[in-house]
Amino acid sequence: MSSPSSAPLRLGIAGLGTVGIGVVKIVQTHAEMIMRRGGRPIEIVAVSANSRTKERGADISGYAWEDDPVALGRRDDIDVVIELMGGENGAAKALVETALKNGKDVVTANKALLARHGTELARLAESHDRVLRFEAAVAGGIPVIKALTEGLAGNRITRVMGVMNGTCNYILTRMEATGQGYNVLFDEAFKLGYLEADPNLDVGGIDAGHKLSLLSAIAFGTEVDFDNVVLQGIGSISLDDIRLARDMGYSIKLLGVAQMTGRGLEQRMTPCLVPETHPLGQLQGGTNMVVIEGDSVGQIVLRGAGAGEGPTASAVMGDVLDIARGLRLPVFGQPAATLTDAPPAVVSAGAPWYLRMTLLDKPGALAKIATLLGESGISIARMRQYSHDGTDAPVLIVTHKASSDDISFALAKFAETGVVVGDPVALRIEEV
Amino acid sequence: MSSPSSAPLRLGIAGLGTVGIGVVKIVQTHAEMIMRRGGRPIEIVAVSANSRTKERGADISGYAWEDDPVALGRRDDIDVVIELMGGENGAAKALVETALKNGKDVVTANKALLARHGTELARLAESHDRVLRFEAAVAGGIPVIKALTEGLAGNRITRVMGVMNGTCNYILTRMEATGQGYNVLFDEAFKLGYLEADPNLDVGGIDAGHKLSLLSAIAFGTEVDFDNVVLQGIGSISLDDIRLARDMGYSIKLLGVAQMTGRGLEQRMTPCLVPETHPLGQLQGGTNMVVIEGDSVGQIVLRGAGAGEGPTASAVMGDVLDIARGLRLPVFGQPAATLTDAPPAVVSAGAPWYLRMTLLDKPGALAKIATLLGESGISIARMRQYSHDGTDAPVLIVTHKASSDDISFALAKFAETGVVVGDPVALRIEEV
Repeated sequence: MSSPSSAPLRLGIAGLGTVGIGVVKIVQTHAEMIMRRGGRPIEIVAVSANSRTKERGADISGYAWEDDPVALGRRDDIDVVIELMGGENGAAKALVETALKNGKDVVTANKALLARHGTELARLAESHDRVLRFEAAVAGGIPVIKALTEGLAGNRITRVMGVMNGTCNYILTRMEATGQGYNVLFDEAFKLGYLEADPNLDVGGIDAGHKLSLLSAIAFGTEVDFDNVVLQGIGSISLDDIRLARDMGYSIKLLGVAQMTGRGLEQRMTPCLVPETHPLGQLQGGTNMVVIEGDSVGQIVLRGAGAGEGPTASAVMGDVLDIARGLRLPVFGQPAATLTDAPPAVVSAGAPWYLRMTLLDKPGALAKIATLLGESGISIARMRQYSHDGTDAPVLIVTHKASSDDISFALAKFAETGVVVGDPVALRIEEV
Repeated sequence: MSSPSSAPLRLGIAGLGTVGIGVVKIVQTHAEMIMRRGGRPIEIVAVSANSRTKERGADISGYAWEDDPVALGRRDDIDVVIELMGGENGAAKALVETALKNGKDVVTANKALLARHGTELARLAESHDRVLRFEAAVAGGIPVIKALTEGLAGNRITRVMGVMNGTCNYILTRMEATGQGYNVLFDEAFKLGYLEADPNLDVGGIDAGHKLSLLSAIAFGTEVDFDNVVLQGIGSISLDDIRLARDMGYSIKLLGVAQMTGRGLEQRMTPCLVPETHPLGQLQGGTNMVVIEGDSVGQIVLRGAGAGEGPTASAVMGDVLDIARGLRLPVFGQPAATLTDAPPAVVSAGAPWYLRMTLLDKPGALAKIATLLGESGISIARMRQYSHDGTDAPVLIVTHKASSDDISFALAKFAETGVVVGDPVALRIEEV
């Protein structure tokens, strides 16, 4: 079969951290395999990074050097710019824009950039007849962008779910395995280098929320709308929650869910209970998982490493090979001009909820809570008061289906009862 | 972004069984979505099936009819022929060849055809500059061909594994769940319509072996070589095996494994023990799973429905949309002329083995077996003789790593000892 071009595909790489060096290594070690699969040679022409002389474990002396990464976007001898610097603005954005305007295709791993500016960059790319690809931005080495955009393109997508921050899943599963608390394991993750410079990007759900917003856009044909992803981090999850959930047959995951509802586009990245018998519930450690549901295909589960040199570089190279082979798709799988501006669903679809609170040990406290829930239109499926030594009584309630609105209403009222100590914890039980 | 063509993509469908009608339904109900994603309308022009008048749950009156499916391959008003008749020779092969020779692209779900004639058909397709796609032939709705050929193309693939026959997995997991024997659940699967007309295609591992041979060709750049897939069905698996495996923390799966070794290409589809903590061990019922391991990406797991109208039609439509979008790849991800003729690895890589046998209850029987294993170069990790009422003693042995050759040698010698009753069962413990 004739390739669209047999000329070498010439790359410029901005950012030579872990992922950038991973890409360099693949290009250097697998040249013959890449040519066989891509139908043409793939060459690195120029690179840019913070330091030219830093020891990186790969020989970059044969490549042209640019102090200014944006200059890569203007070089005549580059076909594809690979942006691996990160950051939602600044040089990364300037480089991507410059490259597209100068007729270069772009491959990026930058979820923050696309979550903030994805629709605008897609319009720019398509107006210049360029492709902008980002498999590496979501769930590391798992080819989920490709599965959703291409393999499952014959489906109306009904829901996308995912555990897409390995650090959060590491902390949560280590809490369960070791019986150590959140703070201890946060420190452990920090020491292991698993946390971003701003840890809230991880444990606050922001990084995973960025990824979810990109999957949403493809799945539902909507403009990227990160601002309306409901975010809740894992900092409020206690060992008690993990144990109580497990006793009922659930695991707690920082779970992203996107679905189009009659009330608008629902996007949330929040800790949820999922059945421990489902692959999501069984996911251990830093591994990522994305679940895609379509009207024809049913439920597809994709699992793999969500970060790291090899997996992320693998995703970048998949995109590069697609470009070498002549695959040219709109950025989000349909022309950017056809992406709709869906209203956000303020109230999430009904689900059972897990509520944990501490009540003052005085007569009628439990009855007050039960009454209040009833008045809020929430019916109780199970309720359990745990034995206790002191004056405060831990209480677990599992509700029947209730909307997030009803739950928020009830939580606000709890404070007025005068019997609830501290903040109650409310976690959705996602039906998978 | 401009599509390669904005003219309608015109389909001819041969075979209007479950999958064919599934494709018709998607094209009819999702026309607008398909156009948005594919960049051009997709139309069904003509169909062919055994009976023109059969009630099928979809209106086909608007399509031209061909009594002879091969005639679809010659029609000037068709761009893509979708072959859903099945069969490794006969009309299916004639249609695919005719279509390719007449300048049509082909999408097929026919694993038997490709397992037998894949290399030859790839050469034919590529000599006519046509694409031949087969996502629906392997693991139903799971976009595994795409993941392996495209998403993971930057990896040297080190191993591909899969549970790819839902009927076998249904029988095995029902044996474990219900405690009923193989014959009872074979009958149940038959009554539920889960078995092929020739059940040996399912329970003998042939259907799954076909699929494995296609994944091998892509993964390792080799000619399709189904004849050298080592096949072993599930008929010899007893409830005892399932229970003993579970007691040790394993599940028994009909597992396909393909890997390139120093001794050649190893392809086998045999019952294996896999850890119950791995996604493969947790796979229940008719669901399929494919595990792909690459040098950069590590281990990727893909899970979903392996059969049925919706999932298989979803895979067909993924291929059709790729063609609409202008994606044109060699059939097995690299030019057919570059596929190598790898020698089969006669001896599989070393692994621990599960051996179950029944010994005559007489002094020294167990010692004879242990001595024989030692003489065969096989060392024993665990050995257990079970309590028994009668004259025969069930014995379970787990070995340290041994080659399939050593195991075969030892099994052949067992008969000569005069203490083994019936045929011993030997199952590989796959290290996942």
